[in-house]
Amino acid sequence: MTQQKYGSDFPVGFTFRTPAITVTETHIVNWAGLTMDFYPLHMNQEYAEKTVFKERIAHGPLIFGMAVGLVAMSGMAGDAAMAWLGTDDMKMLAPVKMGDTIHVFVEVISADKTSKADRSVHAWRYKVTNQREEVVLVFDFKLMMHEKAV
Amino acid sequence: MTQQKYGSDFPVGFTFRTPAITVTETHIVNWAGLTMDFYPLHMNQEYAEKTVFKERIAHGPLIFGMAVGLVAMSGMAGDAAMAWLGTDDMKMLAPVKMGDTIHVFVEVISADKTSKADRSVHAWRYKVTNQREEVVLVFDFKLMMHEKAV
Amino acid sequence: MTQQKYGSDFPVGFTFRTPAITVTETHIVNWAGLTMDFYPLHMNQEYAEKTVFKERIAHGPLIFGMAVGLVAMSGMAGDAAMAWLGTDDMKMLAPVKMGDTIHVFVEVISADKTSKADRSVHAWRYKVTNQREEVVLVFDFKLMMHEKAV
Amino acid sequence: MTQQKYGSDFPVGFTFRTPAITVTETHIVNWAGLTMDFYPLHMNQEYAEKTVFKERIAHGPLIFGMAVGLVAMSGMAGDAAMAWLGTDDMKMLAPVKMGDTIHVFVEVISADKTSKADRSVHAWRYKVTNQREEVVLVFDFKLMMHEKAV
Amino acid sequence: MTQQKYGSDFPVGFTFRTPAITVTETHIVNWAGLTMDFYPLHMNQEYAEKTVFKERIAHGPLIFGMAVGLVAMSGMAGDAAMAWLGTDDMKMLAPVKMGDTIHVFVEVISADKTSKADRSVHAWRYKVTNQREEVVLVFDFKLMMHEKAV
Amino acid sequence: MTQQKYGSDFPVGFTFRTPAITVTETHIVNWAGLTMDFYPLHMNQEYAEKTVFKERIAHGPLIFGMAVGLVAMSGMAGDAAMAWLGTDDMKMLAPVKMGDTIHVFVEVISADKTSKADRSVHAWRYKVTNQREEVVLVFDFKLMMHEKAV
Repeated sequence: MTQQKYGSDFPVGFTFRTPAITVTETHIVNWAGLTMDFYPLHMNQEYAEKTVFKERIAHGPLIFGMAVGLVAMSGMAGDAAMAWLGTDDMKMLAPVKMGDTIHVFVEVISADKTSKADRSVHAWRYKVTNQREEVVLVFDFKLMMHEKAV
Repeated sequence: MTQQKYGSDFPVGFTFRTPAITVTETHIVNWAGLTMDFYPLHMNQEYAEKTVFKERIAHGPLIFGMAVGLVAMSGMAGDAAMAWLGTDDMKMLAPVKMGDTIHVFVEVISADKTSKADRSVHAWRYKVTNQREEVVLVFDFKLMMHEKAV
Repeated sequence: MTQQKYGSDFPVGFTFRTPAITVTETHIVNWAGLTMDFYPLHMNQEYAEKTVFKERIAHGPLIFGMAVGLVAMSGMAGDAAMAWLGTDDMKMLAPVKMGDTIHVFVEVISADKTSKADRSVHAWRYKVTNQREEVVLVFDFKLMMHEKAV
Repeated sequence: MTQQKYGSDFPVGFTFRTPAITVTETHIVNWAGLTMDFYPLHMNQEYAEKTVFKERIAHGPLIFGMAVGLVAMSGMAGDAAMAWLGTDDMKMLAPVKMGDTIHVFVEVISADKTSKADRSVHAWRYKVTNQREEVVLVFDFKLMMHEKAV
Repeated sequence: MTQQKYGSDFPVGFTFRTPAITVTETHIVNWAGLTMDFYPLHMNQEYAEKTVFKERIAHGPLIFGMAVGLVAMSGMAGDAAMAWLGTDDMKMLAPVKMGDTIHVFVEVISADKTSKADRSVHAWRYKVTNQREEVVLVFDFKLMMHEKAV
Repeated sequence: MTQQKYGSDFPVGFTFRTPAITVTETHIVNWAGLTMDFYPLHMNQEYAEKTVFKERIAHGPLIFGMAVGLVAMSGMAGDAAMAWLGTDDMKMLAPVKMGDTIHVFVEVISADKTSKADRSVHAWRYKVTNQREEVVLVFDFKLMMHEKAV
């Protein structure tokens, strides 16, 4: 396996849009089971109907997880990422309901050298957007990237 | 259903520790399928053996999802949370490997009034810790909380 | 880890109510796959429509499994249970349909000493109840409990 | 669809043995997520190592669920069952560990008429047995059966 | 374990019909996650509505997988199969939608000796049929069968 | 949404290689549950040890499903496929064991016009290959492709 892509392939200002996926009841039930989050707003119809949301909504962290996966599935970054460093300024802006279809709009917002020539630190802004073009979740995803050592 | 707990039950400085769970290959495979993240570091043994990690490791966002779930499962917050607002300063500090057992140490770090008497905004710091007491992931989880309207 | 709770914390007559969860098509399909029970009353819409139930209903043992889980998730018993001994007098009283929301009402009905000072045998009656307050399943759950050795 | 089998096809004393299945870590993790039972004896390796079991063991109710499914999968009862009535005298006799392979030995122990000619009530004793021929779980499964109306 | 069934128990012309199952949204979402096939015709409601199908449909290979499973679950072949050799002439003839109920009609179409007396090669034609008796998928399933060595 | 790719982008002789994935026990257990195929060679350790394979192996159709998914995940075909027509000459050549890592080598072997100018019929040969570069499964995947209507 030869390294195919590098951080330098994604300069600041580079943008792309991922494929989209419809969020279903199955995603929500499987998420609860996998992550142990059975909060009643997501899993109890009687409770959810009495909240401001009027129905069960998707867990916010599920939307984060799916956004990361949509970018992975887009294949855009190839094998350029070495490790996930973390996330800044994640803001849940609107609920995602069963049947909503989301995609991610990504923009590279910073690309910094490190003390090692073969790696850099990138921040990519992810805007998760629904089928009505409303941004539902936004965050900056920070990655250690491979760089071509000169 | 009567509201049982409020943001005011969790003053700044309040701390608690959640139950723990062992992260398994099943978690990783199910996570990949649910969130569409089949990045080879997590899902390709041949690839992972050649990285600095030497083996498949858990997806970082899986650890975030499980941390949120461990707090939900602890029952500590009861029904005090109205909605998830987002997350600040998430930092992945160390890899989580299959067989590692994680728990979360939580501390309330801010609790702010809003323009509405019946809700406040809290930030809770989550430190996800493994069986060797190493912090692997840290983030500030921001919540809109119910408050007792006077 | 220090033992936190004991059988003696749950005297005969002690009662509590668990959180609730909505039973979905996803629970039924995942249950069938996990336990190998594809009986057509649960998995074949054409067949189910011709039965007295008129539609696919949840597997009874799924409701038992979820009842046990709702009690675990309530956190009420903490770490007081040492092992599950079995169950007496389980009676399925009414079908659970997709969209029904169930919770469990628990009452300690017996607490017996054993020949060992550090353990006792408890029977807890579980009444699984739907959103119309109908009891759908009832059983006595028998546990070996930790006791404080004097 | 014509009714193919009846309760009268299974007289008292009738026995059969189901196929077998190996219980895996995946079954345990998926069970926890589906039924919400994350009790540390099953899901926390550090905790389990300090118990009398020395390792994570399968949830007892998972073995019950799988026993019911093994009988369904055997196809032996065909469409003779109308509804599940409940279970008597369930006793967990030995732990099931990851890698153990279980099957069920079934014996019809009672078959009673009801006030309606087209249905009867059966009790079938299920003995869940591991690869060392140790009985790990036993219970009497009660069924409303279709009968040929004369 | 004694060998119970042999290829010779299934002569050319032998036919049987399997039980049926309803295909649900849960099957489709779980299939996508397990096999990594998130093609938008199956997973993106907005996209699917603009195709000739007007809605998300089941993945064709999911119907193949379920057909193989329905035959396994029927128990008809017992332990006669030694290994799966492959499949000929698989044709997807009509889409399967959520809520459709499928079963398989099987016919043994060839049974050939091999150079070894204890095994033969069979081809079984599977016709997957929906609740309107429309054949949706057809294929010839090739198996190495156990034979009674003389 | 504008159509982005067409059958004509994939002339006869076009080849590509997909990403790879490690097949795990979790894949096998989840596959059995989703497709109802609990054949003991895959799910019963005691049985499998006595076969020529000496251990539980992956279901062949699971490898087919994952091959289709690896091609989908590669993103290579984009939205050029309109519908799956079927599969020819599928041959299982070697078993896939837990821990094996598979990828697919794809070659376009035929591309035929149809009576409609906006669609063509393609056959793509998939060779599923393990980490020792052994081909384990081969088949010709037939697709109706979008074509640019002139």
